[in-house]
This record gives sequence, C-alpha cells and structure tokens, in this order.
Amino acid sequence: MRVYLDNAATTPLDEEVFEAMKPYMLEYYGNPSSIHTHGNQVKSGLEKARKKVADLLNAAPAEIFFTSGGTEADNTAIRCTIDTYGIKHAITSRIEHHAVLHTLQAVEKEGKVKLHYVSLDERGHIDMDSLRSLLEKAGEKCFVSLMHGNNEIGNLTDIASVSGLCKEFGAVYHSDTVQTMGHYRHDLQALDCCSIVGSAHKFHGPKGVGFLYVSANHKIHPLITGGAQERNMRGGTENVYGIIGLAKALEIAYRDMDDHQAHIQGLKDYMIDRLKTEIPEVGFHGDSANASRSLYTVLNVSVPNVEDNAMLLFNLNIQQISASGGSACSSGSSIGSHVLAEVVKNKENRGAIRFSFSKRNTKEELDYVVNKLSETVKVSV
Amino acid sequence: MRVYLDNAATTPLDEEVFEAMKPYMLEYYGNPSSIHTHGNQVKSGLEKARKKVADLLNAAPAEIFFTSGGTEADNTAIRCTIDTYGIKHAITSRIEHHAVLHTLQAVEKEGKVKLHYVSLDERGHIDMDSLRSLLEKAGEKCFVSLMHGNNEIGNLTDIASVSGLCKEFGAVYHSDTVQTMGHYRHDLQALDCCSIVGSAHKFHGPKGVGFLYVSANHKIHPLITGGAQERNMRGGTENVYGIIGLAKALEIAYRDMDDHQAHIQGLKDYMIDRLKTEIPEVGFHGDSANASRSLYTVLNVSVPNVEDNAMLLFNLNIQQISASGGSACSSGSSIGSHVLAEVVKNKENRGAIRFSFSKRNTKEELDYVVNKLSETVKVSV
Repeated sequence: MRVYLDNAATTPLDEEVFEAMKPYMLEYYGNPSSIHTHGNQVKSGLEKARKKVADLLNAAPAEIFFTSGGTEADNTAIRCTIDTYGIKHAITSRIEHHAVLHTLQAVEKEGKVKLHYVSLDERGHIDMDSLRSLLEKAGEKCFVSLMHGNNEIGNLTDIASVSGLCKEFGAVYHSDTVQTMGHYRHDLQALDCCSIVGSAHKFHGPKGVGFLYVSANHKIHPLITGGAQERNMRGGTENVYGIIGLAKALEIAYRDMDDHQAHIQGLKDYMIDRLKTEIPEVGFHGDSANASRSLYTVLNVSVPNVEDNAMLLFNLNIQQISASGGSACSSGSSIGSHVLAEVVKNKENRGAIRFSFSKRNTKEELDYVVNKLSETVKVSV
Repeated sequence: MRVYLDNAATTPLDEEVFEAMKPYMLEYYGNPSSIHTHGNQVKSGLEKARKKVADLLNAAPAEIFFTSGGTEADNTAIRCTIDTYGIKHAITSRIEHHAVLHTLQAVEKEGKVKLHYVSLDERGHIDMDSLRSLLEKAGEKCFVSLMHGNNEIGNLTDIASVSGLCKEFGAVYHSDTVQTMGHYRHDLQALDCCSIVGSAHKFHGPKGVGFLYVSANHKIHPLITGGAQERNMRGGTENVYGIIGLAKALEIAYRDMDDHQAHIQGLKDYMIDRLKTEIPEVGFHGDSANASRSLYTVLNVSVPNVEDNAMLLFNLNIQQISASGGSACSSGSSIGSHVLAEVVKNKENRGAIRFSFSKRNTKEELDYVVNKLSETVKVSV
C-alpha cells in the first residue's frame, strides 16, 4: 500500500474525466478556430465547456478565459490588470502562492507598482484592520491580491469581506482561488471581485489547464498575444481536451461536493484526533485544525523531535507515504517554505508535514500514516 | 467522405501518441515537483521526454523548456530576450505569424523597442540585402525574429543564412519554427540562433503543449513567474501528458520523416498538376509551388473567378472539404490574411485557399477536392 496525501499538490484524474476527454483526442481533432466542420465540432465542445464552467460559478461564459493553469491565470490577472489600469499600489500577503507573490514582486522590481504587505494575525489570517489601513494610506486605486485558501497551511480567507472592503475603497480585487475551486461553491454574482482562477488538476481534472474569470465590469489586456482565441484574451490554439476535462471535473466536483466535503472533513478530524492521541506534543500550523476557517483538504502538522524535515519526509516516503513539506511548486528550489517562515514562530526541533486529502482517501490509510509517523517520531527522539 | 486539408492549422493526434500519454493520465498522477515517489515517477517521465526532444534536435536537455504551445513559446522568446538584454531594435517581417508580429508590435507600443520590417521579394521571401542593411543601420544589438516556414503561403526561409548574418552583427536571432518542427530536421548545434519553438499539435501530438529552445549561450527571464518548474524558466505545474505526447510525436515524426516527406511532397506535386489541368487560370501564392523553397505540407492556391472567398470556403465545406483561407489563429477576427495582403498584388476576382497536407491524406482525396473545386469555380463564373 502506498498512501497519497499530497492532494493539494495535485489530484488523480477522474476516470469519468478521462472518458470525456477521449473523443477530443481521438475523434474530434479540428482546430476550434477553423471555420469548417472539423473546426466547428471542436469549437462547439469548447464553448459548451465554457458555459458549463460559467454556469457552475454563476458567471457569464464571456467572463471565463481558459489558460494553461492557475499560475498563468494569476500572472495574467496581476500583470494585465495593473497594466490596463496603470495601478501604482498593490496589496498582498507574504503567504500567497509564489504565482502571486513572485509575480507581484517582479512587477514591483520593474518599477510599475509599490507593493504593500497586509499583516497577519498569530494564526496566519489576514488582519482586516491592516488591510483597511493600507487601502486608506494608498489614497488611490489599489490592486489587491489575497488568496482564498492557503495551499500550505489551509487557512481560509473571508473573500466576501475582503471584496467588500476593496469595493469601499475602489480597489481592484483578485483572488487566487486555486485551492478552493471545485471544493467550495463560488457565486460570482455575489462576489465583488475583478478576477479569480482555477486549476483543473487540483480537482481531479487534467494538468496543464486552468481558467481565469474576469468580471464583465473589467476589461484587461492579454498576457499572451498572437491570436484571436479566447476573444482576443489569450493567443494560442486551445488545449481542447484539457478544457473539456476541466469542465467535466468541475461538474463532478459540484455534483458530489456535499458528500466529498463531509467525507474529507471527517478524515481530517479523524487524523487530528489520532495524532493528538499518538503524538501528544503534536501541533498544527496556521489555523489548519480549525474546521471553520481552514480548508477541509489540508492539515499542516507540527511534528515534535524533528531535526531535519527533509529526512522526516524521506523516511515517510520509504514507508510508502506521499506527503509534502510545503508547496510542490517550490520544491525545485532549495529555499524552505515562505509560508511557514511567516506563521511559525518557534521552529526548534519541530518538523512540518502537509497532509492533503481527497475523496479517494480512507480512514485505514490515515491509521497507517499516523502509526508510521508516531514510530518515526519516537525513533528520532 | 470528409477530406481534411487543414493540417497547418492542426493535425490529428496519433494513436501511438495517445497510448504513450494514457499511463500518465490514469496511473502516474503525481506532481513532478513533489519529492516523493508519486512525484518522482512523473518527474522521470518528464525528464525522459525532455532528453528525447533535445536528442532529436541535437540540443542539450537544459536548453528545452516546455510551454503551453508555440504562441507562449514565441511570446517568451520575444518579450524575455528583449527585456533581458535591454534590446532597443527589433527586426521582423510583415508575414510572420501573429504570435510573433502582434507580440513585437505590443512590445514596440510599450516603448521598449523600435520595430523594423525587412523587405520581401516578389515571391514573399526575405530580402537578405534588406536584412543586412537594417542590421547595419541599427548600429547596436538587434533582436531578429524571422520564421522558418510560413504557415499561410508555405515559403521556407534559409534560417542558416539568417543566423549567419545575425552572428556577423551580434544580433540575437529567434525563429518561429512551428511549421517546420517535426517536418524537417533541426540541428541546433549547427544553427547559430538564440531560440526556436515547437507546437506538438502541428506534428500529430496533443494541443496545448509546445516548447521553447533557448541556446545555452543565452539566459533569459521567464514570462510566467511563480514556481521553480522548468528550472525557474516557467512557473506552473507541467502539462505532463501533453509533454509525454509531444516527445512521442516528435520521435515518430523523426522516425518516419523521409517516408512522410516523400508521400506528402508527392501529394502536393500531384495536386499542383491536377489543378493546372482542371483550372488553367489557377495560380499559387507566394512561392508555394516551388518545391525547394516551400513547405511540402502547404499549398496556397490562387483561384480565379472568385468574388467572395468566405463563400468559396463555405461551399467547399458543404462539399465535405475542410481547408482554410489563411491562418486558423486569425479566423476569430474579421480581418483578412495579413500575409496575403503583403504578398498578393492583384487580388481582383481571385480567391485564396490554403490546402495543407499530412501523412494521412491520399491522392483519391485530392482528386475529389480538385473535382469539387473546379466545379465550384465554373459555377461561380
């Protein structure tokens, strides 16, 4: 048995999704921009996918732009909104995904904006007073990028409150919703934001495809130029099977959401209890043990008696457990988690493991993992 | 029978390619950036794909960066090379693909470069004296972007000569090789360029994936930021199955290239002969009837007695023939072909149809198409 508890990094593709993609790989091969029947067949599938995504999010099809993933979508929202409006002040937090943080820092380095960081409370949540104060001080139109669910510690931000505050100050609000898309219901008629994003492989869809929602109230420039695709918002032949798969995966996610949420929250609660019993000194980073303010899919565990976190993860891997120390996207670099660096004050002899769950996980798997982890921790004492 | 002669827009996915992709869709689902076994399995496939592509092109794996397609690759090469080197002059032609032309024009509009257009001869080929003169006049480091095979009229540019001239003037050379990748052999040790690109779906690979080759002599910034993927050159979880499919498709293309080239060139020659016989006033745009200076996959036909080109294509489509008037990428816009606007002097009562062939086409299909076209042209007289 190998246990996969890294579902915030990526989720297995659903068989149903694969079946939906297959005809677009083997039968309908036209370029959706071609105006003949081969093209029209594919265009029709593409636009049905767009409508499906829009319907599920209570948005209009014209507000959905398909991209190569969440990162490209975040890059587009950030770079192109700032460019389009000539915005000079951007507000974000230090625990955003690098797709947001590195991009905003790059834009600042280019001299286009001054970047301001909102304060976080002791559990890693946005300090709303700090956000208000930054918006006030800027004294002009700001770009605000604050994520919905943190990919490392699982903290959930109340994006309705953030968007309300942004509206009050005339700020443009973008939210990186990669971790909540397909796991929570988004109602984009009710949310006062400029843009949110999705990445299909985070909700059992294919890798290499995502989308950017841009509210009809905003019209921003494209990031990738060179074709009239996506209504001039993104050049390049569309990743057709990917888009078909994304829409199918989101449809399944919404269809089964209540059941899956109950199942996964149950797993997470169970694991918290078991860990507390087996490893009394265990802790939880950020607010990840708080069911009402944390992703039900993510549990970031503070493990006692750990000198070398990489070795802990290495040992778990040998014991057939796939989990991570932080974001997969940073693992190609040698720098530790920037999120934990912000929210964990006392790191001495503590390890950090992010367990992230999916509908496929079982209690038996968690029993196995907790047993192995407690043995490992005892050995390393 | 429906005949597909729009292979420059996109090609059907090979069944062999689909089979290669399948395990990465259904079995190996890890994130290649994850450091556990689920991730490592996928990382290994990804790096084998990179090595395969590099080997086929006589490049190093570290020179190959996977992207979401040719357009993103062109955008990256153009924007990031110009930014990295602070280049102030760019040279291109007016018949480049929009992925190049619109991107360079956007960069010029941002005030970063002055754009210069090389002259074309009467057949639409680059005037090398004009290129030399532009390089001389600039008097400083230039960025040159000139495509290998034109997607609309099929003209082939001698990129070895262009790269030699660029080297002489210390210019940085990028070539949009989307139409030749997988159809001609590229030897990147022998070519003095900074960057070239490929798009898998143009050689029977999947849509939504491509690559950028950047010579080890150059180190450019990323376009999409936010992760350490692709050695910090492109943030975002990789389109794993797409990349596996791209490498497999390129392998097949190289394996079968001689046979397919002979077959397709035979088809093109046959069609030229048949058209000349059946429609004596037929012509060919650019240099597409010249076997030595034209893509063997593309034939752009100048059809007499046509008042409305869109209607001609519409009628062909009704007769079960999928062909195009120009680039699929522009068909979402209402503007006619920018390439034909440059190279065709007398458009009066002439139509333009781009027929583009693949290994799957047959002489019987061409007989059908020529018969239908000649009937259509006679009726419309």
